[in-house]
This record gives sequence, C-alpha cells and structure tokens, in this order.
Amino acid sequence: MHRFKISSREKDTFNITGEELHHLTHVVRLECGAKVMGFDNSGGQWVGVIEELARDSACCRIVEEEFPDVEAKARVYLVMGLAKGEKMEWVIQKGTELGMAGLIPLRTKRSVLQLEGAKARDRVVRWQRIAAEAVKQSHRVIEPEIMEVADWTQLKGLLPAETQWLIPYEDEKTHSLKEVLQGYEPRYPIAVLIGAEGGFAPEEVAWAEEKLQARSVSLGPRILRTETAALAALVMALAYFGDLG
Amino acid sequence: MHRFKISSREKDTFNITGEELHHLTHVVRLECGAKVMGFDNSGGQWVGVIEELARDSACCRIVEEEFPDVEAKARVYLVMGLAKGEKMEWVIQKGTELGMAGLIPLRTKRSVLQLEGAKARDRVVRWQRIAAEAVKQSHRVIEPEIMEVADWTQLKGLLPAETQWLIPYEDEKTHSLKEVLQGYEPRYPIAVLIGAEGGFAPEEVAWAEEKLQARSVSLGPRILRTETAALAALVMALAYFGDLG
Repeated sequence: MHRFKISSREKDTFNITGEELHHLTHVVRLECGAKVMGFDNSGGQWVGVIEELARDSACCRIVEEEFPDVEAKARVYLVMGLAKGEKMEWVIQKGTELGMAGLIPLRTKRSVLQLEGAKARDRVVRWQRIAAEAVKQSHRVIEPEIMEVADWTQLKGLLPAETQWLIPYEDEKTHSLKEVLQGYEPRYPIAVLIGAEGGFAPEEVAWAEEKLQARSVSLGPRILRTETAALAALVMALAYFGDLG
Repeated sequence: MHRFKISSREKDTFNITGEELHHLTHVVRLECGAKVMGFDNSGGQWVGVIEELARDSACCRIVEEEFPDVEAKARVYLVMGLAKGEKMEWVIQKGTELGMAGLIPLRTKRSVLQLEGAKARDRVVRWQRIAAEAVKQSHRVIEPEIMEVADWTQLKGLLPAETQWLIPYEDEKTHSLKEVLQGYEPRYPIAVLIGAEGGFAPEEVAWAEEKLQARSVSLGPRILRTETAALAALVMALAYFGDLG
C-alpha cells in the first residue's frame, strides 16, 4: 500500500495535499476507492480509502488505525561534519531506515563543502525530502529531524540538556564506543559527532569534550570513511539498546 | 605514506609491479628515495625506500617491518544477492573498511541483476579492485576475498565446514541477530546471507535453514534496503565480537 504524509486528520478522515497529493495523483496515479496508508509524525498510521479527489486535496475515509512498534526506543542523533558529494545524502537515507532520531549538519574546520545562507537552506530541504522518502520505504511513522546547518557554538541549544554526546576520534585508543555506551542512559538522547573527510581538528575534539562533555571513543583500528563511521556508530548505538532486533 | 600491494619480497627488499607500479609511477609519481608502505596479504606491512625504478618493477629497500593489529578477529563474510546499480560496489567498499573477511555474490530468485560468464567475471574483477582500494584507504593489510558469482548449491563448498550461517529475514519475528550471535563461536567464520532488492523467496530461506543450518534472524521492525541490511548485520557481528573498538 502506498504511504503518504497527511496534512490534517479528523476522527474519521484524513487529507493529503501539496507534494504528497501530486505524488498520489500524478506519480502513482491513484483514484477514488483506492486504499492508502497515511502517517502524521505522531506515531500512528491510518489506512484510508480515497473518497474525494479535488485539485488541492484528497480526502480519505479512515478504515483502520494502527500504532506500530516501528520506531527506535533509543533516540540517536548524528551530527555530521559537512561532507562532499553524496555522502550526506546517503547517511541520511540509510540512517533514516536504521532508525536515527535526527541529523544535524555541522560546519567543521576541515569540511571541504561550504554551505551558507540560501544554498544551505536549499540543501537541507533536499535532505529532508530524502529522509521523508526513506521513512516511507522503511515503514517508519515519524520522520527524523534534519536540522539546519549548524556551527559548533549552536549545537548545545539544538538538543535537550540531558543529551549524551559521543565523538569517534582516531586518536582515541583507550575507550571504545561499546564501553562508553554502557554508561549511557537509553532514556536520554545520544548524539554522535562525525568528522568530515579530514576528520575533526584536535581543537574541535577538545571543545566537544569541554563544552558538551562529549566522550571521545574508538571505532577500532581501521580507518573508516566519514559516511562509514556515521552508519557504524549509529548501528552500534541502536543495536546496543536493542533497536535493531 | 602511499600504500602498495607488493608482488614479491626478499629479506631486505620488496618489488612493486603491474598495476601497482603504474599507479606509483604515473598516478602518484614517486621517484627513487621516496618511502612507500607495502603489504602482501600475509598480515605484515613493510616501509620501503624506492631504490630502483625499472619499466617493469620498482625495487624497494625495507627499512621497517610491522605486523599491525588492524584486521578483525572475527571472520565475517557477506553473501549478497546480486543487486542493481551501485549497491554491490558500496557494500564491498564499506564492508572492506569495516573489516569483512570476504564477500560472495549470490544469484537469487529475485535478483534483478543477472550476471553470467564473462560479464560476471569482469564484474568480479571490478569489485576486487574496489576492495583493494578500500584496503589501502582503511590501512588494512589483508584484502577480503571477493569470490566469483555463485549459486545456492555452490555456497557450502566456498566456506569452511564450521561456518556459522545467518539469514536476516523480515518474516523472522522471534530471534534477533544479537541473540543468535550469543550462541556463535568467534573462532569459526560467520556468513551473513543478504537478499537482493526483493528479499529472499521463502523457499530460499527454507533451503538455507535446511542445507546450511542457517539461523534466520530479525534486524528489527524497520524495512532496510539490501545494502543497509548488509552493513548493519556486518557492523553488529563485528561489534559483538569486539572488532569495532
């Protein structure tokens, strides 16, 4: 069944509008009587039958309501140093499937990709679309927050005060991610800081340790690309708290 | 320091030939006196100084020998249903960085990509190149085995008899990967079977359970793309046995 993000919901009906409506009418070409699955980021999903197809809205009669146990319990955020090419796109796509709670694109000293102003906002919109698609593909019912491109000094304000910060760092030889997770509370958010292509500058790691009380951790002896490190850390954190089966 | 796969090694020297030599002379353009790192899939690596640059070989004097603790202890193989587009490429690249022992491309009922004969062999050669590059990038010293495209009936012969087989399957609701790993021996190889785009056909899962004693496992409630499932299972297996920090 095709899945759509719904724009409004009453007791017995929900509405699909905007881009989602365009997708329904012009891409998958559904007509009255067709069944669709709607979600609204509240955690529920609703099977609806298309009753009315107007130019600006599709009205669907709700025939089934579900609150599927599909979202991860642990709230793991990725904070990604801006990386070139398709790296961000695919971390967002795969990270959404796996169950990340959100992603913050971060300007770092060694980021080759520079994003400011309108260019940054356009890119974030594109990333949000990729996440929205991945939510449907993976049958999640809550979209991860893909936040605006941030600087180091803004980070603390973007996540709850209880957030537990991790920073994989190749010079960290003592403490493993696994070991540090043992001291972390699944009921508070976890944010994993991932460097761009060149990794983090030592002063950035020091800043995160001091200002965010981030724990620097090792992901093992092999050098991982930024996108590989991001997904590995996400999988390890979600798996540790039982969110990957 | 640039890393090269060496073709032969004496007590005090090693030689770089073929494609590796071409890369040394024409791509990174090194000359006599330059230091290079050589590896030969034996587990060691050697720092050498280029002493002689001939048309068919570069002879390097060994100035340092190391046996770095960089390879994963657990030997985890991915058996990937042939998938379209760049999916195989990137599982091979990322899987190599993470520390997989090898990959077997598998013809499955629902594989859209069909590879036979010369076409299959050419593709495998390309995949082996991608793995070789990822070995250098991640500073591994042993290349993963990227095997020929196989059919189900060939699988058993390709890995040791003690191999412990896992098959993530979306209809498996009871047993998680994590739980099944608890019964597995890190000293024996682990092979994870990953379906192509359409997943495995039920009869393929039944065959793997009967003929390979594969345990079907759940990767959680979210639907993962084939390439995401492959990396998630690999990370979980390597992390479980302490190979990712």
